[in-house]
Amino acid sequence: MTDFHELADRYIQMWNETSDNDRRGIVDDLWARDARYVDPLADVTGRDAIASLVGAVQSQFPDAVFSLRGPIDAHHDQVRFAWGLGAPDQEPAVIGFDVAIVDLSGQLSAVWGFLDKAPAPE
Amino acid sequence: MTDFHELADRYIQMWNETSDNDRRGIVDDLWARDARYVDPLADVTGRDAIASLVGAVQSQFPDAVFSLRGPIDAHHDQVRFAWGLGAPDQEPAVIGFDVAIVDLSGQLSAVWGFLDKAPAPE
Repeated sequence: MTDFHELADRYIQMWNETSDNDRRGIVDDLWARDARYVDPLADVTGRDAIASLVGAVQSQFPDAVFSLRGPIDAHHDQVRFAWGLGAPDQEPAVIGFDVAIVDLSGQLSAVWGFLDKAPAPE
Repeated sequence: MTDFHELADRYIQMWNETSDNDRRGIVDDLWARDARYVDPLADVTGRDAIASLVGAVQSQFPDAVFSLRGPIDAHHDQVRFAWGLGAPDQEPAVIGFDVAIVDLSGQLSAVWGFLDKAPAPE
Protein backbone atom coordinates (compact mmCIF):
# COMPACT_ATOMS: atom_id res chain seq x y z
CA MET A 1 0.00 0.00 0.00
CA THR A 2 1.26 3.42 -0.96
CA ASP A 3 1.38 5.98 1.83
CA PHE A 4 -0.23 8.82 -0.08
CA HIS A 5 0.44 11.39 2.64
CA GLU A 6 4.13 10.63 2.39
CA LEU A 7 3.91 10.66 -1.40
CA ALA A 8 2.25 14.08 -1.47
CA ASP A 9 4.77 15.50 1.03
CA ARG A 10 7.67 14.15 -1.03
CA TYR A 11 6.14 15.55 -4.21
CA ILE A 12 5.91 19.02 -2.67
CA GLN A 13 9.46 18.61 -1.37
CA MET A 14 10.57 17.94 -4.95
CA TRP A 15 9.01 21.20 -6.12
CA ASN A 16 10.84 23.08 -3.36
CA GLU A 17 14.24 21.40 -3.72
CA THR A 18 16.54 23.93 -5.40
CA SER A 19 19.66 21.77 -5.49
CA ASP A 20 19.73 20.11 -8.92
CA ASN A 21 21.36 16.99 -7.52
CA ASP A 22 19.05 16.60 -4.57
CA ARG A 23 15.99 17.31 -6.69
CA ARG A 24 17.07 14.68 -9.21
CA GLY A 25 17.46 12.24 -6.34
CA ILE A 26 13.88 12.87 -5.28
CA VAL A 27 12.65 12.60 -8.87
CA ASP A 28 14.40 9.23 -9.34
CA ASP A 29 12.89 7.98 -6.11
CA LEU A 30 9.41 9.34 -6.67
CA TRP A 31 8.66 8.91 -10.38
CA ALA A 32 8.60 5.91 -12.71
CA ARG A 33 11.05 6.18 -15.63
CA ASP A 34 8.42 6.84 -18.27
CA ALA A 35 6.15 8.94 -16.07
CA ARG A 36 4.17 11.80 -17.55
CA TYR A 37 3.42 15.19 -16.00
CA VAL A 38 0.86 17.49 -17.58
CA ASP A 39 -0.46 20.84 -16.40
CA PRO A 40 -1.93 23.73 -18.42
CA LEU A 41 1.58 25.03 -19.20
CA ALA A 42 3.62 21.85 -19.54
CA ASP A 43 3.45 18.31 -20.93
CA VAL A 44 6.60 16.33 -20.20
CA THR A 45 7.56 12.66 -20.06
CA GLY A 46 10.46 11.03 -18.23
CA ARG A 47 12.58 11.90 -15.21
CA ASP A 48 14.99 14.21 -17.06
CA ALA A 49 12.15 16.33 -18.40
CA ILE A 50 10.32 16.39 -15.08
CA ALA A 51 13.44 17.45 -13.14
CA SER A 52 14.15 20.17 -15.73
CA LEU A 53 10.60 21.45 -15.61
CA VAL A 54 10.69 21.79 -11.84
CA GLY A 55 13.94 23.75 -12.08
CA ALA A 56 12.45 26.02 -14.72
CA VAL A 57 9.36 26.73 -12.61
CA GLN A 58 11.57 27.55 -9.61
CA SER A 59 13.46 30.06 -11.78
CA GLN A 60 10.16 31.76 -12.59
CA PHE A 61 9.18 32.02 -8.92
CA PRO A 62 12.53 32.32 -7.11
CA ASP A 63 11.24 33.39 -3.70
CA ALA A 64 8.09 31.29 -3.60
CA VAL A 65 7.51 27.98 -1.90
CA PHE A 66 5.11 25.18 -2.68
CA SER A 67 2.84 23.81 0.02
CA LEU A 68 -0.06 21.41 0.25
CA ARG A 69 -3.50 22.99 0.69
CA GLY A 70 -6.12 21.06 2.57
CA PRO A 71 -6.40 17.30 2.94
CA ILE A 72 -5.37 14.75 0.40
CA ASP A 73 -7.98 12.30 -0.90
CA ALA A 74 -6.69 8.89 -1.99
CA HIS A 75 -8.09 5.50 -2.99
CA HIS A 76 -6.79 2.60 -5.11
CA ASP A 77 -3.72 3.94 -6.97
CA GLN A 78 -4.74 7.57 -7.12
CA VAL A 79 -4.69 10.71 -4.97
CA ARG A 80 -5.98 14.26 -5.40
CA PHE A 81 -4.75 17.31 -3.56
CA ALA A 82 -4.51 21.07 -3.91
CA TRP A 83 -1.30 23.05 -3.57
CA GLY A 84 -0.23 26.66 -3.34
CA LEU A 85 2.82 28.52 -4.57
CA GLY A 86 3.77 31.85 -3.07
CA ALA A 87 5.78 33.81 -0.56
CA PRO A 88 5.89 32.10 2.84
CA ASP A 89 2.99 33.08 5.14
CA GLN A 90 1.12 34.89 2.39
CA GLU A 91 -1.85 33.94 0.25
CA PRO A 92 -0.41 31.89 -2.65
CA ALA A 93 0.00 33.60 -6.02
CA VAL A 94 -0.73 30.30 -7.72
CA ILE A 95 -3.13 27.60 -6.59
CA GLY A 96 -3.19 24.27 -8.35
CA PHE A 97 -4.81 20.90 -8.15
CA ASP A 98 -3.22 17.58 -9.06
CA VAL A 99 -4.39 14.04 -9.51
CA ALA A 100 -1.45 11.66 -9.15
CA ILE A 101 -1.43 8.00 -10.22
CA VAL A 102 1.04 5.45 -8.89
CA ASP A 103 2.18 2.22 -10.51
CA LEU A 104 2.41 -1.18 -8.84
CA SER A 105 5.77 -0.28 -7.28
CA GLY A 106 4.30 2.87 -5.75
CA GLN A 107 6.12 5.29 -8.06
CA LEU A 108 4.27 8.06 -9.85
CA SER A 109 3.23 7.02 -13.34
CA ALA A 110 1.32 10.21 -14.10
CA VAL A 111 0.34 13.54 -12.61
CA TRP A 112 -2.61 15.36 -14.20
CA GLY A 113 -2.47 18.97 -13.05
CA PHE A 114 -4.91 21.86 -13.24
CA LEU A 115 -4.75 25.48 -12.12
CA ASP A 116 -7.35 27.12 -9.88
CA LYS A 117 -5.56 30.45 -9.58
CA ALA A 118 -2.90 31.67 -11.99
CA PRO A 119 -0.53 34.57 -11.46
CA ALA A 120 -1.72 37.90 -12.82
CA PRO A 121 0.15 38.96 -15.97
CA GLU A 122 2.83 41.60 -15.28
CA MET B 1 -8.63 18.61 -31.04
CA THR B 2 -11.06 16.87 -28.74
CA ASP B 3 -14.26 18.76 -27.99
CA PHE B 4 -14.24 18.24 -24.24
CA HIS B 5 -17.71 19.73 -23.75
CA GLU B 6 -19.10 17.16 -26.15
CA LEU B 7 -17.03 14.44 -24.48
CA ALA B 8 -18.33 15.31 -21.01
CA ASP B 9 -21.92 15.46 -22.26
CA ARG B 10 -21.57 12.07 -23.95
CA TYR B 11 -20.00 10.63 -20.81
CA ILE B 12 -22.96 11.77 -18.71
CA GLN B 13 -25.30 10.44 -21.39
CA MET B 14 -23.62 7.03 -21.01
CA TRP B 15 -24.28 7.04 -17.27
CA ASN B 16 -27.95 7.82 -17.93
CA GLU B 17 -28.52 5.37 -20.81
CA THR B 18 -30.57 2.48 -19.42
CA SER B 19 -30.81 0.46 -22.65
CA ASP B 20 -27.96 -2.07 -22.53
CA ASN B 21 -27.54 -1.95 -26.29
CA ASP B 22 -27.56 1.80 -26.58
CA ARG B 23 -25.25 2.19 -23.59
CA ARG B 24 -22.80 -0.27 -25.11
CA GLY B 25 -22.87 1.74 -28.32
CA ILE B 26 -21.91 4.87 -26.42
CA VAL B 27 -19.19 2.99 -24.52
CA ASP B 28 -17.69 1.66 -27.78
CA ASP B 29 -17.72 5.12 -29.24
CA LEU B 30 -16.42 6.94 -26.19
CA TRP B 31 -13.80 4.68 -24.63
CA ALA B 32 -10.58 3.09 -25.90
CA ARG B 33 -10.59 -0.73 -25.81
CA ASP B 34 -8.21 -1.03 -22.86
CA ALA B 35 -9.50 2.02 -21.00
CA ARG B 36 -9.53 2.07 -17.22
CA TYR B 37 -12.15 3.57 -14.91
CA VAL B 38 -11.43 3.95 -11.19
CA ASP B 39 -13.52 5.54 -8.47
CA PRO B 40 -13.57 4.85 -4.72
CA LEU B 41 -15.95 1.91 -5.25
CA ALA B 42 -14.78 0.46 -8.56
CA ASP B 43 -11.65 -0.30 -10.57
CA VAL B 44 -12.44 -1.73 -14.01
CA THR B 45 -10.64 -2.08 -17.31
CA GLY B 46 -12.11 -2.54 -20.80
CA ARG B 47 -15.40 -1.70 -22.46
CA ASP B 48 -17.27 -4.78 -21.20
CA ALA B 49 -16.42 -4.03 -17.60
CA ILE B 50 -17.19 -0.34 -17.96
CA ALA B 51 -20.60 -0.97 -19.56
CA SER B 52 -21.43 -3.53 -16.84
CA LEU B 53 -20.37 -1.17 -14.08
CA VAL B 54 -22.62 1.60 -15.39
CA GLY B 55 -25.55 -0.82 -15.50
CA ALA B 56 -24.85 -1.93 -11.95
CA VAL B 57 -24.72 1.65 -10.67
CA GLN B 58 -28.03 2.41 -12.43
CA SER B 59 -29.59 -0.58 -10.62
CA GLN B 60 -28.47 0.89 -7.30
CA PHE B 61 -30.03 4.29 -8.08
CA PRO B 62 -32.98 3.43 -10.34
CA ASP B 63 -34.75 6.79 -10.24
CA ALA B 64 -31.71 9.03 -10.23
CA VAL B 65 -30.11 10.88 -13.10
CA PHE B 66 -26.56 11.99 -13.66
CA SER B 67 -25.81 15.57 -14.59
CA LEU B 68 -22.77 17.77 -14.98
CA ARG B 69 -22.17 20.28 -12.19
CA GLY B 70 -20.44 23.51 -13.05
CA PRO B 71 -18.01 24.17 -15.87
CA ILE B 72 -15.56 21.70 -17.30
CA ASP B 73 -11.86 22.57 -17.27
CA ALA B 74 -9.76 21.07 -20.05
CA HIS B 75 -6.25 21.39 -21.47
CA HIS B 76 -3.97 19.08 -23.47
CA ASP B 77 -5.55 15.61 -23.30
CA GLN B 78 -7.31 15.98 -19.98
CA VAL B 79 -10.50 17.41 -18.51
CA ARG B 80 -11.91 17.75 -15.01
CA PHE B 81 -15.54 18.18 -14.09
CA ALA B 82 -17.95 17.57 -11.25
CA TRP B 83 -21.20 15.64 -11.56
CA GLY B 84 -24.25 14.92 -9.49
CA LEU B 85 -26.52 11.91 -9.19
CA GLY B 86 -29.99 12.26 -7.78
CA ALA B 87 -33.66 12.73 -8.36
CA PRO B 88 -34.38 15.30 -11.09
CA ASP B 89 -34.64 18.89 -9.78
CA GLN B 90 -33.36 17.96 -6.33
CA GLU B 91 -30.01 18.33 -4.62
CA PRO B 92 -27.95 15.32 -5.75
CA ALA B 93 -27.55 12.43 -3.30
CA VAL B 94 -24.09 11.78 -4.72
CA ILE B 95 -21.59 14.35 -5.96
CA GLY B 96 -18.47 13.23 -7.73
CA PHE B 97 -15.47 14.61 -9.50
CA ASP B 98 -13.69 13.04 -12.46
CA VAL B 99 -10.49 13.63 -14.34
CA ALA B 100 -10.72 12.09 -17.80
CA ILE B 101 -7.78 11.46 -20.12
CA VAL B 102 -8.14 10.97 -23.87
CA ASP B 103 -5.81 9.15 -26.24
CA LEU B 104 -4.58 10.42 -29.59
CA SER B 105 -7.81 9.35 -31.29
CA GLY B 106 -9.87 11.31 -28.78
CA GLN B 107 -11.24 8.25 -26.97
CA LEU B 108 -11.13 7.99 -23.20
CA SER B 109 -8.06 6.08 -22.03
CA ALA B 110 -8.71 6.61 -18.33
CA VAL B 111 -11.14 8.23 -15.92
CA TRP B 112 -9.90 8.89 -12.38
CA GLY B 113 -12.93 9.49 -10.20
CA PHE B 114 -13.41 10.80 -6.67
CA LEU B 115 -16.46 11.35 -4.49
CA ASP B 116 -17.27 14.66 -2.80
CA LYS B 117 -20.59 13.55 -1.36
CA ALA B 118 -21.58 9.93 -0.83
CA PRO B 119 -25.07 8.63 -0.11
CA ALA B 120 -25.88 8.20 3.58
CA PRO B 121 -25.93 4.55 4.68
CA GLU B 122 -29.48 3.17 5.00
